[in-house]
Amino acid sequence: MSAANINIPNATQPRIVIVGGGFAGLNLADKMSKMNYQVVLIDKNNFHQFQPLFYQVAMAGLETSSILFPLRKLFQKRKNVFIRVTTVTKVDTNQKRIHTLLGGLDYDHLVIAIGADTNFFGNEQIARKAFPMKTVGEALTLRNKILYDYERAITTTDYDERQGLIDIVIVGGGPTGVEVAGALAEMKKYILPKDYTELDCEEIDIYLVQGGDCLLKGMSPEASQKAEDFLKKLGVIIKLNSRVEDFDGKYVHIKGGEKIQANKVIWAAGIKGNTIKGLPEDSIVWGQRIQVDRENRVAGLEEVYALGDIAYMEEPAYPKGHPQVAQVAIQQAKNLANNFKLKSKGKPAKPFEYNDLGSMATIGRNRAVVDLPRFKFQGFFAWIVWLFVHLFSLIGMKNRLFVFINWVWNYFTYDQSLRLIIRPKNRNSKEKESKEPVKNT
Amino acid sequence: MSAANINIPNATQPRIVIVGGGFAGLNLADKMSKMNYQVVLIDKNNFHQFQPLFYQVAMAGLETSSILFPLRKLFQKRKNVFIRVTTVTKVDTNQKRIHTLLGGLDYDHLVIAIGADTNFFGNEQIARKAFPMKTVGEALTLRNKILYDYERAITTTDYDERQGLIDIVIVGGGPTGVEVAGALAEMKKYILPKDYTELDCEEIDIYLVQGGDCLLKGMSPEASQKAEDFLKKLGVIIKLNSRVEDFDGKYVHIKGGEKIQANKVIWAAGIKGNTIKGLPEDSIVWGQRIQVDRENRVAGLEEVYALGDIAYMEEPAYPKGHPQVAQVAIQQAKNLANNFKLKSKGKPAKPFEYNDLGSMATIGRNRAVVDLPRFKFQGFFAWIVWLFVHLFSLIGMKNRLFVFINWVWNYFTYDQSLRLIIRPKNRNSKEKESKEPVKNT
Repeated sequence: MSAANINIPNATQPRIVIVGGGFAGLNLADKMSKMNYQVVLIDKNNFHQFQPLFYQVAMAGLETSSILFPLRKLFQKRKNVFIRVTTVTKVDTNQKRIHTLLGGLDYDHLVIAIGADTNFFGNEQIARKAFPMKTVGEALTLRNKILYDYERAITTTDYDERQGLIDIVIVGGGPTGVEVAGALAEMKKYILPKDYTELDCEEIDIYLVQGGDCLLKGMSPEASQKAEDFLKKLGVIIKLNSRVEDFDGKYVHIKGGEKIQANKVIWAAGIKGNTIKGLPEDSIVWGQRIQVDRENRVAGLEEVYALGDIAYMEEPAYPKGHPQVAQVAIQQAKNLANNFKLKSKGKPAKPFEYNDLGSMATIGRNRAVVDLPRFKFQGFFAWIVWLFVHLFSLIGMKNRLFVFINWVWNYFTYDQSLRLIIRPKNRNSKEKESKEPVKNT
Repeated sequence: MSAANINIPNATQPRIVIVGGGFAGLNLADKMSKMNYQVVLIDKNNFHQFQPLFYQVAMAGLETSSILFPLRKLFQKRKNVFIRVTTVTKVDTNQKRIHTLLGGLDYDHLVIAIGADTNFFGNEQIARKAFPMKTVGEALTLRNKILYDYERAITTTDYDERQGLIDIVIVGGGPTGVEVAGALAEMKKYILPKDYTELDCEEIDIYLVQGGDCLLKGMSPEASQKAEDFLKKLGVIIKLNSRVEDFDGKYVHIKGGEKIQANKVIWAAGIKGNTIKGLPEDSIVWGQRIQVDRENRVAGLEEVYALGDIAYMEEPAYPKGHPQVAQVAIQQAKNLANNFKLKSKGKPAKPFEYNDLGSMATIGRNRAVVDLPRFKFQGFFAWIVWLFVHLFSLIGMKNRLFVFINWVWNYFTYDQSLRLIIRPKNRNSKEKESKEPVKNT
């Protein structure tokens, strides 16, 4: 192995470099660190993010820190794990080497688990003006913007201008869109009338715009219908078979000519794979995902794997690839780790087979929809199941404890105390502090 | 009363405008809202900040949200309280009117409680490069910088460069400087060796530079001495009678010629009053404070008051003004509210008299110093007293609960899970994410 520019000791163990500390990367690093490998885990952040609860951070229901976990703390006792917080700039599969902002690094095995980001489907204007929710930073930016706009609304006497500040359009009827719509509707119902007594909260309109003819397309018809019923009961205006064509920061233009006045569009309409330079062009397929075989190997490359949201794998039961959800990522990580173990014993690797444990979405207090392989249910019991599954999927006992207390607290008080507009301080130009929270800066 | 540009309803009640939601402003708003006044509370943030625990946020010991509390939530049930999140640009005492970024507003009574900011004593270079800790945003920026520099240190092979990344200089031996030094020393001892096994944590040097000849100058000689002993036992290098003359981002220059290599200077060496335009020049005195009489009235102005850190008041027992601490702010707010009540009953106002309840500082686990008016003590019992006083001074039951759990958790695990470098996301220029957390942008 040639000298590496990133300061990582040479070891006699083979080196596996894992790019990305999401569900796939984290689970693989955990398993591999218990075997005879040197594991290098690279992420842009020094923490793992629990994506399924981003929307609760954006809706001021949870502290950011409760759904994040420092990578170093997770691997404190694994001496063969090396964590580096940096960005991978290029992969050199011929030299078996990656390049990062911290320098180069040789690998024996490379695992790409860089996940997916928001897909604006090429609309630059929407990309600039709409609010995505694929990182905890974006969730916080959205939280600040929502709260800031309510502050502005109470000092705005012009009716139309005020409507623009208080109305919100959510694009995308998948789990994220449904969960955000439900949370916003509950905020409108229970919290805003108490915080903003000067505002007529009945004037707040929450729109959920979905391209297809039902919500929660990946779930059962019962779940779709119930989610729609629950949201309507909460006052959400649902627009099915509707496509957002444009958004100029003031008006949302729906295909067909309809126009909705709203300063905020929350974009949950699609994702696309994050990119990494140096992979063969033909390995990048639909949705910017990386095509892999049943062992998660990138086609045509030696010892390069892709896992989770970024990977596109066809198996007989999933001829169009797997859904981009946490369970696929976790199961692929386990299968790949197991294949390394099998190969070390001279046994053949096992092709990946996705075991769908079910899917669920919550709409609000006491209301969720759950599809399990054998039965489906909706309502209060589904909501309890949703709570416990998410609570126990969190990493860290203290995170679970704090999320649990927050949920219980919010349930009984119909309130919480996290409606904070926290911005980094700008000491050199004080005026700016009072200006609008800026997106993308 | 003439029309106001900020959208606040005219009331038959007299209007008291309070600028600043710190200890003084908050306590006054609370008292006045129970009387027959229209209360307008103006702050740049939508939350109250609990300054005494900023250092624990900066040291990754507490969540930000635990020491902040939304102003709106505090006054949800007071229909005569109006909160506006904005910056006051100018006071017009002749017209009895203030100007803000949201427009103008007439007042019957004006209370200036804008507090103090870091004082760099005119050194522009230090102001640009050093890290202050007077807002929660600054505390977060410092936390990110400390963690980021340890990340960089493990990939830095050059000895001197690495020392610059891991060594920290704290300037100022008051409570903040002492508390930060103690917390950093404990981080070095208990946490960093577990998180950064690749780093020789013995190489980390923590300097505390103090201009005077003892630490905690405002406290008793016993407290000063014990604080020094405790910090030395934790390995902090204390430099008394030393003044930092310059800091270029790499070296700290001490008066007399000594040079310390360190990329980070935490500046806790002094404060100065925040400024507000439109007050008579001669009312601004030493430390940029506003001179007030014993009833907190700004000299020569009608119905304009200043409270807390920004106010400079001489009373016989404090001929050089009061210490700039929370207790003075709270007591002045109570006295002023009481004077409004007395005057409404035709009784004469009571001059303010500061009742010193004592002072305290914590150095680390089991170690604090407490000076009460009648007795002084140090060590474990002082630490317990410090914990409870701070816990019960926090606003909000949930904040108290969360801080308490965090403290108990940290005490028994010698660890926590808040070492997160959270930065706002910049989607348009991804490369920047991996660069250094930037100060003042």
